[in-house]
Amino acid sequence: MDSVPNGGWLDGCLNVLTGVEILRRINTQYNGRPPVTVRIVDWADEEGARFGKSLFGSSACSGNLDMNEARGLIDKNGIKLPDALKEVGIDFERVKDSGKELKSAAAYLELHIEQGPVLLDLDLPLGAVLGTFGVERHTITFHGQAAHSGSTPMNRRKDAFLAAAKMSPEIYKIAERSKGRAGFQPAYAEQCEANARADALVGQSGSLSYPGGVCTIGSCTTKPGIVTSVVEECRITLDQRHLDGAALARMLQEARAASERFAQEGNVTVDWERLWQIEPMPFNETLIGFCDDAIRETCGKSHQLPSGPLHDAAEVARAGVPTVMMFVQSLHGISHNKIEDTREEHLILAVRAFDALASKTMRWLGGR
Amino acid sequence: MDSVPNGGWLDGCLNVLTGVEILRRINTQYNGRPPVTVRIVDWADEEGARFGKSLFGSSACSGNLDMNEARGLIDKNGIKLPDALKEVGIDFERVKDSGKELKSAAAYLELHIEQGPVLLDLDLPLGAVLGTFGVERHTITFHGQAAHSGSTPMNRRKDAFLAAAKMSPEIYKIAERSKGRAGFQPAYAEQCEANARADALVGQSGSLSYPGGVCTIGSCTTKPGIVTSVVEECRITLDQRHLDGAALARMLQEARAASERFAQEGNVTVDWERLWQIEPMPFNETLIGFCDDAIRETCGKSHQLPSGPLHDAAEVARAGVPTVMMFVQSLHGISHNKIEDTREEHLILAVRAFDALASKTMRWLGGR
Repeated sequence: MDSVPNGGWLDGCLNVLTGVEILRRINTQYNGRPPVTVRIVDWADEEGARFGKSLFGSSACSGNLDMNEARGLIDKNGIKLPDALKEVGIDFERVKDSGKELKSAAAYLELHIEQGPVLLDLDLPLGAVLGTFGVERHTITFHGQAAHSGSTPMNRRKDAFLAAAKMSPEIYKIAERSKGRAGFQPAYAEQCEANARADALVGQSGSLSYPGGVCTIGSCTTKPGIVTSVVEECRITLDQRHLDGAALARMLQEARAASERFAQEGNVTVDWERLWQIEPMPFNETLIGFCDDAIRETCGKSHQLPSGPLHDAAEVARAGVPTVMMFVQSLHGISHNKIEDTREEHLILAVRAFDALASKTMRWLGGR
Repeated sequence: MDSVPNGGWLDGCLNVLTGVEILRRINTQYNGRPPVTVRIVDWADEEGARFGKSLFGSSACSGNLDMNEARGLIDKNGIKLPDALKEVGIDFERVKDSGKELKSAAAYLELHIEQGPVLLDLDLPLGAVLGTFGVERHTITFHGQAAHSGSTPMNRRKDAFLAAAKMSPEIYKIAERSKGRAGFQPAYAEQCEANARADALVGQSGSLSYPGGVCTIGSCTTKPGIVTSVVEECRITLDQRHLDGAALARMLQEARAASERFAQEGNVTVDWERLWQIEPMPFNETLIGFCDDAIRETCGKSHQLPSGPLHDAAEVARAGVPTVMMFVQSLHGISHNKIEDTREEHLILAVRAFDALASKTMRWLGGR
């Protein structure tokens, strides 16, 4: 239920309050004795807005939290994370003890607003989430030669900006190509094909598509960066994300190859530095199927999509617990902003479908 | 004879010292009574390294100096230009009085190192300068929409960097197209065609070419400029130069049209702001011919080229004095740098050819 500064009203709150409503329903239905134990978790500090490190609670629980790094985190007032936790009665050195709560967990379900425009574009209220994207994040630096903008003929230039600029249309092509089957791990390929068959059976389009990745150049700096000189050094950042590890690796390899080709064409050199990476975290196929069914039963049509942003669910999946997420449409495709919103009828559908998903999951687990 | 900080040994000095040597020769030859009056001028503050305004002396003399702007110029120690001049005995308010020295001037000749790689590439020691480029200098700002790099599909993006990046290969195409005949003012077209015929007569290639322009994107900045967001605003600088006013105007028009096309393709908007402009300053055709002849007689082959950098000669030409410059090859194509250099045999050829140019010019003026 935490938020970014000036965030919206649904990111976080919707998930927890929906869980509370479903717990009420289960408690009433089974008179306090459901066939499997059902818990709700309100993860601590998912956004990382104060200490700059997201997924604090869930990564502590999954065991992936880097204790040395987290011990040194400070907020903008110089307060250390361990001291802030102490004030609310939590011993930082024991946060990983929470991992025992996951030891017996048989399944984990999370509802979330999409925070992107995919369902909005498809005019669908709900979607089943295939997993969270793996991320490759790099800086790419092109090294050319500064030269006078007036006296240097075009064919004599070693223009670092030219090579970097060519990367921008190229990453759109790389992202487009990443939709193909090749590179997808067998499990994903089978899942996508099964989805297409299921769509065909219920009379929908049934066309076969593999979810593609995304690539972003978010920053560009130039040196010397003056109007009268050819650019000597151009540095761009590249963020690449894909649900499939092999496809992500291929996207990265294609971007590297393109950067080297553009460097060679322009008589400049290029080097790469990795800023960060994380593996894709695929969700559980059975639960994805339940989620899809629950959505179809509630509102007629489902859609499967990967999650670009990270979520606590990824940490739980990483800890080996079968996991799935359900997305509800975001108006404007926007989150982390006061205009974040979802139509009320979609919120109602989301709670109903998530409730159906909980029932299906409980039946599955109870029958084991 | 002024210099930029850490500049080379030829930029400025070569021109003045060559003039001194030629004055000595003329004085000896005519026993102090040449048929026309010959003067040497060592222009003040050509580089503008201290007060940030180049061509101080020559623009004062030509009458183009903006007195109000110049009056307010200060160096990095807070000293005003008028006070610095006062210390060396010059009254700032009277600098334009120097213009009377140009009133009776019949011709102006200037030798300079090329400061670029054109003659080096052609393996020629000397070239006749057609004039100084006109310059159009703008900032171009593309406005898109910031969006999460993970949750925003590629086809939903309004990526300001993508549109800006497409400008980079485009300006190379625009510069290439600017070599054509169309748009060239008749005098230039005739000059180029005469050159081609002359080359053919002396058994050289004789191929017809019109000097092209240059375009440079020297700076690129991005907002918010973070690795995890699509670029909302991208600002680039564009410097365009051409010897021909109509061709420069067409280069600018093509760049504008391209920026609007790329903006539309990417669903972003674009606006332009002019930083600075100056008209091309063509040199005198008769003197260009003399310069060419002097070079051919001295070293067998000449080449005509425009000057990308500005020079004092442009201010003198602007004041209506028939003007030409001669360029000598720059090693590495580099200036404003300690490695600036020219082969000694090329310096000797430069002084000889410039001396011949002076003689031809004096004969022309003396016969009037």
